[in-house]
Amino acid sequence: MTAADLCVTNARVFTCAGPDDAPPAARLAPIEGGAVAISDGRIRFVGPAADAPAAARVIDAGGRALLPGLVDPHTHLAFAGQRVDEMARRMAGEDYRAIAAAGGGIKATVRAVREASDEALFEGTAARARALRARGVTTAEVKSGYGLTVHDELRLLRTARRLDAEGLLHVTTSLLGAHAVPAERQGDRAGYVEEVATSMIDAAVAEGLADACDVYLDDGAFTRDEAARILGAAKAKGLAVRAHVGQFADLGGAELAAELGALSADHLEEVSDAGLRAMAAAGVRAVLLPGAWRTLRQTPPDAARMRALGVRVAVGTDCNPGTSPSVDLPLMAALAVRDAGLTMEEALLAITAEAARAAGVRDAGRLEVGARGDLALLDHDDPRSLTYALGGPPAPLVVLAGRVVEQQAFAPPLW
Amino acid sequence: MTAADLCVTNARVFTCAGPDDAPPAARLAPIEGGAVAISDGRIRFVGPAADAPAAARVIDAGGRALLPGLVDPHTHLAFAGQRVDEMARRMAGEDYRAIAAAGGGIKATVRAVREASDEALFEGTAARARALRARGVTTAEVKSGYGLTVHDELRLLRTARRLDAEGLLHVTTSLLGAHAVPAERQGDRAGYVEEVATSMIDAAVAEGLADACDVYLDDGAFTRDEAARILGAAKAKGLAVRAHVGQFADLGGAELAAELGALSADHLEEVSDAGLRAMAAAGVRAVLLPGAWRTLRQTPPDAARMRALGVRVAVGTDCNPGTSPSVDLPLMAALAVRDAGLTMEEALLAITAEAARAAGVRDAGRLEVGARGDLALLDHDDPRSLTYALGGPPAPLVVLAGRVVEQQAFAPPLW
Repeated sequence: MTAADLCVTNARVFTCAGPDDAPPAARLAPIEGGAVAISDGRIRFVGPAADAPAAARVIDAGGRALLPGLVDPHTHLAFAGQRVDEMARRMAGEDYRAIAAAGGGIKATVRAVREASDEALFEGTAARARALRARGVTTAEVKSGYGLTVHDELRLLRTARRLDAEGLLHVTTSLLGAHAVPAERQGDRAGYVEEVATSMIDAAVAEGLADACDVYLDDGAFTRDEAARILGAAKAKGLAVRAHVGQFADLGGAELAAELGALSADHLEEVSDAGLRAMAAAGVRAVLLPGAWRTLRQTPPDAARMRALGVRVAVGTDCNPGTSPSVDLPLMAALAVRDAGLTMEEALLAITAEAARAAGVRDAGRLEVGARGDLALLDHDDPRSLTYALGGPPAPLVVLAGRVVEQQAFAPPLW
Repeated sequence: MTAADLCVTNARVFTCAGPDDAPPAARLAPIEGGAVAISDGRIRFVGPAADAPAAARVIDAGGRALLPGLVDPHTHLAFAGQRVDEMARRMAGEDYRAIAAAGGGIKATVRAVREASDEALFEGTAARARALRARGVTTAEVKSGYGLTVHDELRLLRTARRLDAEGLLHVTTSLLGAHAVPAERQGDRAGYVEEVATSMIDAAVAEGLADACDVYLDDGAFTRDEAARILGAAKAKGLAVRAHVGQFADLGGAELAAELGALSADHLEEVSDAGLRAMAAAGVRAVLLPGAWRTLRQTPPDAARMRALGVRVAVGTDCNPGTSPSVDLPLMAALAVRDAGLTMEEALLAITAEAARAAGVRDAGRLEVGARGDLALLDHDDPRSLTYALGGPPAPLVVLAGRVVEQQAFAPPLW
């Protein structure tokens, strides 16, 4: 038997595996004195350290908690420009609509993306990807949505793919041409929707740039009919679908997501019981986005209600320059616990196994043989420390496809 | 003229200096192309780079924002043990009083502190101090309060002083013997209060271990009369005073803090207009603690109301294992903006100049000649980026008394 490439040993291994409907505590039962070995970028062994194969490189985890690399199921990581000053004005009470009407908001970022060189666009996106990874994330869903032309949406998707090609992060992409109607198409809303549903999707599919299609279905964004047109077209072309649903108003997006068999419906501040029941029945994940509800000063969704109605929950950063400037996924999980009432165990699954389901990635978010060789080691023996703390230091060890991509000197646990 | 020890040049320098009652924007007017030079641990020059003195070491900031080292005005950094499991139970809905009655809560940490060796106590405290510093903090207020005997409260204060002696952080200490009545003194509450007011304060003063005295004045903690007895005694011995006020109930603590000329009254979820007016008149700072209000799922204080009544505001981590496990001061400021309505400019002063006033430290929190040579460089040219983002990477450069104590490779800004 050949030696494995890497073995992390003497860890408390939390696989996050097992049936989706097993209780969180069962999915988080540790393998004490465990090891995970990786060959050719894939997990080859998970079990007691004594049974682990020999490996070219062995890292002693010193009894720390070992998780699958974290999965961020909702990001707008690819953008250019900055909106710090706009946020300062909004936080001081200035009206968002007035700022948007004066060319701020999404429009400002669209302008910056169109003006940025491909290299500048990638450089900023890569910096965010690295920051996300430093806290343990190895797989991220990345949306377009700040280009709003076929040309610029494809540039954003290529930027996302390049993160993966250069080994920064595993990336799954969503075409979000229906993020907003671009300024130059305000008089031609129906035409823009048709363009997204036809030539934009076609071009993204032809170049293999999109894994899924997303629509911002909400008051002030796109209607249920428009979303159905676009997501239906995407599905017919073989893309997975997801939607921003109920951030401000319940337009029946949860029901639509269920009808279409979407991977996820995201935000869900405003959603009916019927919508949640439909999602539960169809296996559509709810993706909660605490950065947005905190920044927009909204009432958070209620995890107890989702639990009671059988909806499975993931948590994302929603990393974007307007409403959730964050690259700290464990912090988002910690806020979801405090604000929405997820248990700390649910929150841990919400950024691992459940997040992978929401992202539509089959081989991440779990430590099991054959899955991606992605690991996040914590500075603590209890993985719930990740959602206990509000913010925290970088993960001491992050492994991506069997490569050590982040490593810090081991330090005593903070808590 | 001898060369300075260190000069950080080509920075946007935000001094946070100027009169306390100047508008925040004026205190945050940048020196473009600025430099700060340090000799013998003190700031020797602040101004245009062209006028800076020669220096043994010069660091080019590449146009990034340079701030005074951040100041955390409220921490319980010195403790031992961990309460992750207890937090998980509380977050899942278990009653805190039931947990406390079964030996959890503050009691659990008191037990752990009494059982920990001096070295173990220091090691965990130092790990937290380093994590705090990685985000730019160079001065922290550190309380005792988990010992609750003369012997153990002094051990905690010595641990805090050792952080400073070993060059980890500048520390100012508060004796918080009146954090809780210890389990073994439940039948002798009055006796315990007297002990704090006499032998505990005397011992801390005799050994030079306390800069200030603090009392947890609230429902379920100490009464206004008890606080007045203890803080009055501390003042008579030459200590500064501060208090935990109105976290759960308004017991007149703000008025007491004003009467005593306290440095700060902290928490203030429940406080009357009269209490705030008294604080404003007496120059008592309000210290807001977002980690606690989020973890306890409370309604945050209202910054607009404090502003209208003339109260000056600082923000702290409240770093503690029960209600605010956080070592991320910029995150706390970002939450204070979102939750309490501080402007992003106010929030920046709330963790620099205003925090230093609240901490009772005259020579920190501002970049001016003669002040401590403490600097925090950001990865952005706009210092408001610090309260714009929810969580973030380590500061690229932190200088403590003229020594570079944290340094990261410069990376592109995230936003």
